[in-house]
Parts: sequence; C-alpha cells; structure tokens
Amino acid sequence: MSEVTLGRYIFERLRQLLVQTVFGLPGDFNLSLLDKIYEVDGLRWAGNANELNAAYAADGYSRVKGLACLITTFGVGELSALNGIGGAFAEHVGLVHIVGVPSISSQAKQLLLHHTLGNGDFTVFHRMSNNISQTTAFISDIKSAPKEIDRCIREAYIFQRPVYIGLPANLVDINVPAMLLSTPIDLSLRENDPEAQQEVIDNILQLVSEASNPIILVDACTSRHNCNSEVEALVNKTQFPVLTTPMGKSGFNESHPRFAGVYVGTMSHVEVKNLVDGADLILAVGALLSDFNTGSFSYSYKTKNVVEFHADCIKIKQGTYPGVQMKEVLNVLLDNVDSAIKHYSPVTIPSPTLLTNSVTNSEVLSALLTQEWLWSKVSSWFKEGDIIITETGTSAFGIVQTKFPNNTIGISQVLWGSVGFTVGATLGAVMAAEEIDPNKRVILFVGDGSLQLTVQEISTMVKWETRPYLFVLNNDGYTIDRLIHGMSATYNDIQPWNNLALLPLFNAKYYDAIQVSTTDELEKLFSDEDFAINSKIRMIEVMLPRMDAPINLIKQMEFISKMNTDT
Amino acid sequence: MSEVTLGRYIFERLRQLLVQTVFGLPGDFNLSLLDKIYEVDGLRWAGNANELNAAYAADGYSRVKGLACLITTFGVGELSALNGIGGAFAEHVGLVHIVGVPSISSQAKQLLLHHTLGNGDFTVFHRMSNNISQTTAFISDIKSAPKEIDRCIREAYIFQRPVYIGLPANLVDINVPAMLLSTPIDLSLRENDPEAQQEVIDNILQLVSEASNPIILVDACTSRHNCNSEVEALVNKTQFPVLTTPMGKSGFNESHPRFAGVYVGTMSHVEVKNLVDGADLILAVGALLSDFNTGSFSYSYKTKNVVEFHADCIKIKQGTYPGVQMKEVLNVLLDNVDSAIKHYSPVTIPSPTLLTNSVTNSEVLSALLTQEWLWSKVSSWFKEGDIIITETGTSAFGIVQTKFPNNTIGISQVLWGSVGFTVGATLGAVMAAEEIDPNKRVILFVGDGSLQLTVQEISTMVKWETRPYLFVLNNDGYTIDRLIHGMSATYNDIQPWNNLALLPLFNAKYYDAIQVSTTDELEKLFSDEDFAINSKIRMIEVMLPRMDAPINLIKQMEFISKMNTDT
Repeated sequence: MSEVTLGRYIFERLRQLLVQTVFGLPGDFNLSLLDKIYEVDGLRWAGNANELNAAYAADGYSRVKGLACLITTFGVGELSALNGIGGAFAEHVGLVHIVGVPSISSQAKQLLLHHTLGNGDFTVFHRMSNNISQTTAFISDIKSAPKEIDRCIREAYIFQRPVYIGLPANLVDINVPAMLLSTPIDLSLRENDPEAQQEVIDNILQLVSEASNPIILVDACTSRHNCNSEVEALVNKTQFPVLTTPMGKSGFNESHPRFAGVYVGTMSHVEVKNLVDGADLILAVGALLSDFNTGSFSYSYKTKNVVEFHADCIKIKQGTYPGVQMKEVLNVLLDNVDSAIKHYSPVTIPSPTLLTNSVTNSEVLSALLTQEWLWSKVSSWFKEGDIIITETGTSAFGIVQTKFPNNTIGISQVLWGSVGFTVGATLGAVMAAEEIDPNKRVILFVGDGSLQLTVQEISTMVKWETRPYLFVLNNDGYTIDRLIHGMSATYNDIQPWNNLALLPLFNAKYYDAIQVSTTDELEKLFSDEDFAINSKIRMIEVMLPRMDAPINLIKQMEFISKMNTDT
Repeated sequence: MSEVTLGRYIFERLRQLLVQTVFGLPGDFNLSLLDKIYEVDGLRWAGNANELNAAYAADGYSRVKGLACLITTFGVGELSALNGIGGAFAEHVGLVHIVGVPSISSQAKQLLLHHTLGNGDFTVFHRMSNNISQTTAFISDIKSAPKEIDRCIREAYIFQRPVYIGLPANLVDINVPAMLLSTPIDLSLRENDPEAQQEVIDNILQLVSEASNPIILVDACTSRHNCNSEVEALVNKTQFPVLTTPMGKSGFNESHPRFAGVYVGTMSHVEVKNLVDGADLILAVGALLSDFNTGSFSYSYKTKNVVEFHADCIKIKQGTYPGVQMKEVLNVLLDNVDSAIKHYSPVTIPSPTLLTNSVTNSEVLSALLTQEWLWSKVSSWFKEGDIIITETGTSAFGIVQTKFPNNTIGISQVLWGSVGFTVGATLGAVMAAEEIDPNKRVILFVGDGSLQLTVQEISTMVKWETRPYLFVLNNDGYTIDRLIHGMSATYNDIQPWNNLALLPLFNAKYYDAIQVSTTDELEKLFSDEDFAINSKIRMIEVMLPRMDAPINLIKQMEFISKMNTDT
C-alpha cells in the first residue's frame, strides 16, 4: 500500500498511540471520515448519545489511556462539545477533537449552508475553540495535512491538552503517502536548557540539604504528565513523607509506608495538617492549586520553601524558571539527591485514619445509610486496579476520606467541576478499561441530580455490553448547591425519577438494578463475592438523607457562599 | 419601594416584556440571582435538566412569545448552552442569556476558582459567546448596570438575536433605583433614513407597476421581525399570489385564497414551481436563503427582478440599501401601492395539492405506516392555534407537505439544524402556550435517534404537568444521515430504547404512551375526540420502515452528499 486516504492516515496515527476507541456522533460533514475508522485494525467507533457526553467520554478514556479522539460535525456538533473540551483544557487531558467541516469549495463560495450562522463565516467556530485548545489546525491543503495532523496529535499528547482539527469533508478521501506512517510521531520532550536546569537542580539540592522536615505533595499533573514513577523513586530514595491533593489522589500508592494522607489545607485530618504545617520544605509535583483542591485556598504552609514542579516550568520560592520541564528535572534530581539527604532522618508517618473509626458496629445494624458511613465502608470493597470515578458534588468530597488500593485510577473533575461529567467519563473509562483488562472494574459514584444531565450515555454503556458499577447517590436534588445557597429553594429540587427503570429502558439484557437504604443492605452487597466481580452492568441506587453530606464539602461550600457575596 | 436589587431589576424588566418563564440550571455563581425570580409576580423558574436543553427551551419559548431568558453558571454551564445560542443567532431568535460569574473581587484576585480554566482568565467564555451574540455586557459597575441590562434586552428584542450578560455573583443583591423600572425599555425601531427609504419605495413601485406576474415569498424573518400583518395587508391589497419557504411556513395563513403553497426550489410541487418560474417580480420578505430552505440552492427564478426585505436592509435586484428596515418600508409601500397595481389582473392560484391524493382509501386499511401516509393524513388532525414542532431529519422535510390551519406556529430549525433541538424547544413552547391559552396544543414530531440526544427534557415537561403530544417517529436510527452517506454503516445505528417506558420513568402520573404501526391505528387515533384534546402528556411512538423518508428529503440529501465530495 503506497498511499492511504487522509481520513485513514489520522486513525492510523491515533492507533499508533494506543487509541482503540473513537468517540462522537455522525453528522453530515464527517460521515466519510467515519468510514475510515472501520479500515483500521483494532479501532472502534463508540457512537455516543450526544456530543457533550462524547467529549466527557473522550476525557475519561484519555485519563486511563493517555490520549483520546472525539469527532463531531461542524457548528452544531462541535459547539455542543465545548464544555467537555474546556474541562479537558483546565484539567490537562490529552484529546484530539476532529471536526468535520464543509468542503473547501463550499467554504470558498461562502454558501449559506445548514449548520452555519447564515453569514458565510466558516471560521467562527474554529476561533471559539481556539480559546480552549493547546493548538488548532484548520486543514485546507492536502500536501501539508499529514504534517499538521502529526503536529496536533503530538501537542495533545505532550502537553496533555485538547487540540482542534477542522477537516473539510472533501479531503478525507484524498490520498497521502503511506510511508509517512512508518516514521512514528516524535513524542519526546525537548531537552531542558542545560544552564537553567543546572541552576534549578542546584537550588533544589541546596533547599533539600537544609531541610529537616521536607515533604512531597503529589498533585493532578503528576499522573497526567507521566511522572508517577519518578516521584515514587524519589520517595523511595529520600524517604520523605508523601501526600496527595484531592486531584492528585491515586497518583501515589496509598499503601506505601511513606504515604501520609490527603492534604486539603485546613480541612485536612489534623495529623496531616500538622505534618504539612511543620514542614520546612515542600516539593509540590504537578500542582493545580484550585479552590476545591486546596481546601478553599486554605493552604497554611509555615514555610516559604516551596518548589513547584510543572510540565512547563519550575517554581522555586518566588522565582520561576519558564520552559524547564519537570520530568527531566525529577530524573536529574534522582541522580544527584543522595548527598543532599545524608543528614535527613525520616519522620514517623501518621497512620492513615479512615473514618471507619467513627462508625461502630453496634450503630451499623439496620441503620439508615449516611455519606459518612458509605465513604468509610467503601474503602474495604475497592480492590487493586479499580478505576474509581466520583462526580462533582458530595461524591468528589466523600472520596477524599477513602483509601485507594494500589494501581487504582481516581477520576474526578475537581477544578472544572462540570455537573454530569462522570456519566460520560464512565463510558470512556470503561471502554478503556476493557481494552487493558476485561476484569478491571470501573466504579462510578454520581448524585441523582447530576445523573439527569447526561443519563443517556448509560445507553451507550449498554450498547457495548460494558460492565461498570453505577452507584447513584439519591439525596433528592442538588445537595451541593443547597449547601452554598438556597437550602430549601425549589430551584435546587429535581424531578424524581424511577432510576432503577433506566437499564431496562435502555434495553440492557443482563444487568442488576438494586436499591439500598440501610447500612445492613450495603454491607451485604460489599461482602457478596459475586457482586465483587464485574460480570454485568449494575446500578445501585443508594438512598441518603436529603441534607446529608461529607463534612469537608460542608466547609467548602460555606467558603463559596461567602466568596460570592464578597464585594 | 424606592430601590430594588439588581437581580430583581432584570426580572422586572423581562416581565414587562411578557417573559413569564425563565429557563436554565442552578449553579454556584447564580444562586442568589435565582432567588429574585420568586419575588416577581407571574414569573417562574423552569429548572431544566441540562443547559443545552435549557437553551433549546428558551429558543422554543421565544419563537412563541417573542423573547426568552436563559440563566447558566460561569464556564461549565454557559459553554454547555453554546450550541443552543448559536441556533438562536443563526435563526433570529430573541434570547437573553444571563451568566452568573464569580464576584468582582474573585476576578480581581485572579483566584484559581473551580469552573475556570485554572489560568486566571475570567473573560475567555465571554469572548467565546461574543462570536454568536448580537451584543454582550460583562457587568462590573453597579451604577451603569441597569442601563447595560436595558441595552442588552432591547437588542435581543429588536434584532431577535441572543445577547449575553455576565453578572458577578456579588452584584445581584446590590440595590438600584426602582424608579428606573417605570420608564419602559424603548423597543421602537429607529426611523429609516427618509431619502434612502424614498428611493427604495420608488424603485419597488416602479418594479411593481411593470410586473404582470409578481409574487410574494414569505420567509422565516417575517414572523421573527413581526411583519406578518404587513404582509397579509399587502396580499389583501395587491392580490399577488403568496408562497412561503420551508422556514417561513406558518408565517402566512395557508387558508387564505391567495396562498399558493410552499416553495422549495426545484423540489417544489410542479404547480408551485411553475408559478415561481413564471413570475416577473418576486417580493421576498424576511429571506433566509439557506440550502435546506431553498431546495439546495435550486431557486430557479427566471426573473432578475427580486426585492428582498430584511430587518436591517433592503435589496433591490443587485443593489443593497443598508440600514433600511423592512417593517417601515412595508407600511409605506402599503400606503402607496394602489396606483402601481392598477394594471394587475390576479392570476389563478393552483389548488393546494396535498399528497392525500396519492393515498387511496383502499390502501389505507391495515397497511404499515409510511412517512408519505403520515404527512398526508396529519393535516386534517391539525387545528387552529396549534404549535407544530418538527425535528431536523425526516420530520422537518415531511411537514412541508402538510397544510397548516390558520394561526398555527411552526417551529423547525431548518438553517442551524441541530439534532435534538425540538425536545428542548417543545418544553419551551408548551410553557409559553399554556401562558397564552391552556387549550393550545403543542405537537412534536421527532425521530427516535434525535430524541436520545435531549430526552431528559421530557422530565421537565412532566414536572410542570404540561400536556404536549410527542410523536416519536421510530425508524431505527439516523435515517437522514443514512441518506447522505453510509446507508448501512453501523455509525448510523442507535441503541434501541423502550421509548414507551420514558413517561413512567420520569414519574408522569397522568399520561398516555401509545405505539402505532398501521395506518388503521393512526387513523383511529386521529378520529378520536378525546385524543384531540390536550388533557395530558402523550407519547405516540410511530413505527416506520428504516429507510422510509419524505421524497424531498431524499433529494436534498443527494445534494449534500455530492457537495461534501466536491473539490
């Protein structure tokens, strides 16, 4: 084969980077492109229920596999996906968004086509996406097209951000040289400037050698930029205590003897807070210091000695070293840290205090379920390799109180916080999971309110016969909003649904739909060996009191409420 | 009351313009704003299932009542709504989109808040919306706020386009003078430049006086810019034949003796096509000449004498008169047209040929349903005052073949063509309809594929105990896409749902859910007097053959298919 169509070229490139599922919806300017998916071995078209869900699914898939592809159609399709793209941009998720656009000749004639604004402007949607993309290409020339596509895919992967490719309908069937595919896309990071890097290393080593109580804080971008093994090696070598943020949770093995807990500023457990307060050096890797990730900006470092490791810069105290990338720095640091830690004597790690302590067995029997009980018990049901997805709302805050087994992946949109995200993300994650290992469990915790925004993506889960666990926490409305404002306002109510009827509605053939209201019922479920095996799709509706919420959520919402009225 | 909060001010203004329902979702930066809705008499908060649906609902509401309001929250909420806003922009629908944004002080401090991109840029979403808005305001100063709000509302109403208001959470509770509310927002059009208008009128009268076979063509913007009565008066006075486009359908009384049919270029009925081909003057009012509205640009005027009346300009043959607005021109024309039409002798109007003719009674008995049969029979079931909503897809093309009773409102997103639009639009339309007259029927025709994108908005219809007719045309997938490309491709398949289980799932208490497969069954339904009364919410699933489609859709899709491969 000496030539391939441009359409196929794109998918071959994505397949080379382990993308095996493509998300999106058909639309009149992308249909010929979709044909090419079927030509590539091991690639499948998910076929989502709507474009926003498809974007969420691509995001979830990428968080598991490192890259994802989303296809929409011009105007209507691409705009529907923008909230999902914005989330991927904010939270550093690598995503290639391909938009089927009208043919070059239709654009040149400025035809008043459907899916346009009716004003002959064919670039307006591209301009809009440009605001929330790492880079974009609006393909217009077949000769430069492969190079442009490679450039976009590379940047999506390297920078872990969404990129936008506008692809005219008439170009996808035009051939390009097949031999271009035999040179892999260069995914290597460029090397750091040696002088800048040396200065960074020297300064960090100086701080390390002077510190008595250094700690390592693992945040979201550690995983996203693939620095987990470097961090683990650094912990092993230095024996510094290591903590994660809420967004960084699952970025470090919580069973590691040096793991000290999740740090959420003043809302942390007291031992964790004391450990951070007492630190005289903080090595913060992949930091994303947003409000919900920091206990409402309540970080209370006593020390000014903070080193932030980022994908595109290093910050040491008040100084910034732009362009110095953390991955190379971490590796050089590993090679040179020995002499700087000679003096260091490892501190004791506080034993992780799960809230299980607060729930005694005598209370458990046939009591009504509460969030507190749920989040303390669920840790023991999690197992190695699980993918655990928690919706913005009570779940994302509750999950912080749990302990993750090793090699879990936690997915939670803590910064962007788009309600409904997780239902789409679960579809993406479960498709990625079965590509890795069919026994890998995908576990969703979503509120009854959030579920309503994106419910139809469960239909796609059913279509593919995937086998996730869907825990629907039914607390009768938008509890998180109630905590901010409008405790009993009707705008925080939702129409109650018969949630257990959803799976049969979507024509699931082999499924469970269970409602649990008492601790006893949930305890039984968690100790059931069959239930522990992901043999079918399951919905577990967990009935909870209306105003019941994890304690750290309540504190955070008080902060938001105050901030909104601050003048 | 000498002062009102800024939040209440907005809603009082909207209420003055007959807005009685506000669409959207609660979110942490708009909660205090929502409180103010409950302070205004006769105003209600719809509380939608997601933001895109809410935007569609606002669009549907506005097409019935002339203006609508949508409220979302910063970042996540507003981006989800953009496809709906784009549709309102393309199709000239007046809409006020209010976005609850972080407080002034949060913005000033560039806090790394949730719902941001994490880069301190608080204006990025405003910039994105700016591309698809008539005008925008990002409120930052309480003093100028009322004036800015009035300006935006005025432009939404006058230009029938979406406007964007970014409203910081901390400002909604600050007071502004109540007396501002006693001066109504000035909704008058500015007067046309007298000289330009005189030239326009002279030129039109000259063309009219020279024409033997003039016709009037009514398009979408006639209704949107409120020129229906001017057009009707012009037809009554001149006796010129009048036609509508697909988007203009319902813009003129189809029972009027001078109504000659729907013109869809070469895809029109032959008598209609002959009438237009034979015309030597076309007065085109409110033209929106997009592909699907013109039979794929197949307008085949023999004459060069075309006058286009637009909201913001008049085009006469090749000349454009910018800024000359059609409403005033039509009124002046009415006053002066008498002498120019003295010579005119009215031509005979072709009798409207419904496709009923092609379906004989003997064929009807117990035959399987087809689109052809459905669209020919349904006309007799429509009644005066109905609001008839047809989804992009087979429905929007089929509806062109029906006859509308007088005072119907047809809603179809012919230009923007976003799949799933009508489910949201139906919620908006049915809430508007019950504000006008509780007996007013709202009738939706939507495909099984389109329904899946926005299905949860039926839950909001149930919540409000509205009573629409939801005809779900089940042809097992995306038939419209199949006709363009991929006749048997799996990407045009959808997961089949048990659609009749939807209303009970959403907890409807008083409803009908009916499936019809034969002409006999549908005939019985249409002759049932109880069924004709909108006493409850009804879903009627109409089972149709997979590849069955209205003939004009098939022709249009052949065109699209060709255009996509055109180089």
